Amino acid sequence: MRDVAVIGVGMNRWGELWDKSLRAIFVESALAAMDDAGVDHIDAMLIGCMTSGLFTEQEHLASLLSDYLAVNPVGAVRVESACSSGGNAVRLGLIQVASGAADIVLVGGVEKMTDVDGGGATAALATAADTEYESYHGATFPALYALIARAHMERYGTTREQLASVAVKNHENGSLNPRAQFRNKLTIEDVLNSSAVADPLRLLDCSPITDGSAAVILAPVEMAKKLGKPVVKITGSGIATDSIALHSRDDLTYLKATERAAEQAYAQAGIGPKDVDFAEVHDCFTIAEICVTEALGFFERGQGARAAQAGETSRNGKRPVNASGGLKSKGHPVGATGVAQIVELTEQLRGTAGDRQLKSPRRGLAQNMGGTGGSTTVHILEVTP
Amino acid sequence: MRDVAVIGVGMNRWGELWDKSLRAIFVESALAAMDDAGVDHIDAMLIGCMTSGLFTEQEHLASLLSDYLAVNPVGAVRVESACSSGGNAVRLGLIQVASGAADIVLVGGVEKMTDVDGGGATAALATAADTEYESYHGATFPALYALIARAHMERYGTTREQLASVAVKNHENGSLNPRAQFRNKLTIEDVLNSSAVADPLRLLDCSPITDGSAAVILAPVEMAKKLGKPVVKITGSGIATDSIALHSRDDLTYLKATERAAEQAYAQAGIGPKDVDFAEVHDCFTIAEICVTEALGFFERGQGARAAQAGETSRNGKRPVNASGGLKSKGHPVGATGVAQIVELTEQLRGTAGDRQLKSPRRGLAQNMGGTGGSTTVHILEVTP
Repeated sequence: MRDVAVIGVGMNRWGELWDKSLRAIFVESALAAMDDAGVDHIDAMLIGCMTSGLFTEQEHLASLLSDYLAVNPVGAVRVESACSSGGNAVRLGLIQVASGAADIVLVGGVEKMTDVDGGGATAALATAADTEYESYHGATFPALYALIARAHMERYGTTREQLASVAVKNHENGSLNPRAQFRNKLTIEDVLNSSAVADPLRLLDCSPITDGSAAVILAPVEMAKKLGKPVVKITGSGIATDSIALHSRDDLTYLKATERAAEQAYAQAGIGPKDVDFAEVHDCFTIAEICVTEALGFFERGQGARAAQAGETSRNGKRPVNASGGLKSKGHPVGATGVAQIVELTEQLRGTAGDRQLKSPRRGLAQNMGGTGGSTTVHILEVTP
Repeated sequence: MRDVAVIGVGMNRWGELWDKSLRAIFVESALAAMDDAGVDHIDAMLIGCMTSGLFTEQEHLASLLSDYLAVNPVGAVRVESACSSGGNAVRLGLIQVASGAADIVLVGGVEKMTDVDGGGATAALATAADTEYESYHGATFPALYALIARAHMERYGTTREQLASVAVKNHENGSLNPRAQFRNKLTIEDVLNSSAVADPLRLLDCSPITDGSAAVILAPVEMAKKLGKPVVKITGSGIATDSIALHSRDDLTYLKATERAAEQAYAQAGIGPKDVDFAEVHDCFTIAEICVTEALGFFERGQGARAAQAGETSRNGKRPVNASGGLKSKGHPVGATGVAQIVELTEQLRGTAGDRQLKSPRRGLAQNMGGTGGSTTVHILEVTP
């Protein structure tokens, strides 16, 4: 297996992109990534997208997007695993380059979520839960994560203020990100006083509905070394599944798939959680970021909320989490999120993250999950200056 | 890259499976494949499925199906490329085993299409076309393939009777297949007198709406050799895309992606079209099989219809095509079709195809395509007795 690097990244400004179609949104990021990499062709393409069928009545995305990027007959395929579709596309792209099946692979992620009304988007997203045993009975994602939050509060004494501190931190970070959907800063009071969505979660605990895309170009490290930029290598990759339905889990607060995917990625990279300088993780709700930082081994179980409130995951803290603004502030076009995490890691590792640049990070981790954690990918990236 | 074999296959009886849910349909085939392979674990899973979101309001299939097959935390992901989702899943599974990323990979395909009414299914399938430029304007798949059929008739003098001969042959074959949805035989007159769907195509030119699944287990050839069965090796794999919309093509009758995917597969296997003993191809409509056999190089362009009528693709002909009954008779649960083709090739090559067994075939080809040919995979399988 060959070592693989990220040689190009691209991402558009996320938000409610009423004047842009699904295909146009994708092409913006894909061309930016190809331009950044300095390549004029690709050998294969993978697209992370959760549900263009339900959002825009368009399936067969591989054919549509290879056509509009003008790269056909390049082999292209869409990859779906709910909100971890992007991370899964990255992993399959990585395997193609590592194996020698392809040299230059474009991994894109895209979602256009605002072409349906708010209820339609919530219903489309609910298809990431167990439809027959969860969604049909009225459970939406805010409701499912509210159950997780309530369990975490009961078990570990986590407070509403601690949950809110995650949103405050991520908006603080996102205010420095020109591509973020929401660049406004928040206070703890803003979060606590926002509309109730599903107790104990409030509107400002929830990531938004977003149109957006992201793309990365993967290639062998040997090729990356000739490009005159810092070489950003993917040193670890992990994947795991867990029960799709919350009711099948022993412990609602324990994201087993995240822990297992992280174990694989750490082992492959030859490191442990303490060696990770910064991370982009899946904060679809404030409670999610807390549970994820515990499952990744950054904190003991039950300590994630305390750590967030204490500033340990802030951009100036011991281990910055979601310096991009995370899903909460940057936005969450579901299929694009896992790819955008790799864009952020790459820019931070190259030292080109602008106003939100962290201080010389050397190793970053991306964690992307589907549903309430039924599927997860973890990637570790490392820079050679 | 390691050589890869198909060590297990499974498939359920296809049809209108009112008493079985999406997850139950999948598990039947997956367990049958694991049993056939004699394995009690898998290292990774790929699922071909076009649009469980629109058919059953269920996305996040990887998590759902790994859960119900009781294989989580195994890494699992869904692959979508409309009706070539299954073939694409096979290809990505092949790359995982060939690269050493995994040893034993389960590739499944599944679709439950009958839980929506007939119009709903046609609308869901229409998302495989270009939604903005084709489907929104009323083009459904029978209409799009009718345009292809009309162009083939105009250009090459293809007749209605020749189109009908494909359906008659495939039902003849399917009558011998205990897992086929429709086992009745047809006459040319039956096809010509069936209801008009989109001129010149009639009801019996069209593949049906089907619930069904299929699964194969892939593993290194070295492992396959120890199992005491004929070793069925995947010797060639190709993938290509083409314009998703028919109006972007130079020639409506020319399936460019099929030709290009076949070129790759032939080159990898070190063979040409003449070396293929039999094939399973994508006969979603009778005209599709005709265009595909031309693009695969089995016949000169414009000669596919004549060859079908002359019996060259019949089970006793020079090169049998769709000995399983094809999509027309066996059924077409869209995401499962490409995986089921590999099941059929494997059973024929092992000599275990029962009443429909061909005479000692040594090398078979599977061609699976999405939409009107916007994406295509081709695989070549070869047996070592």
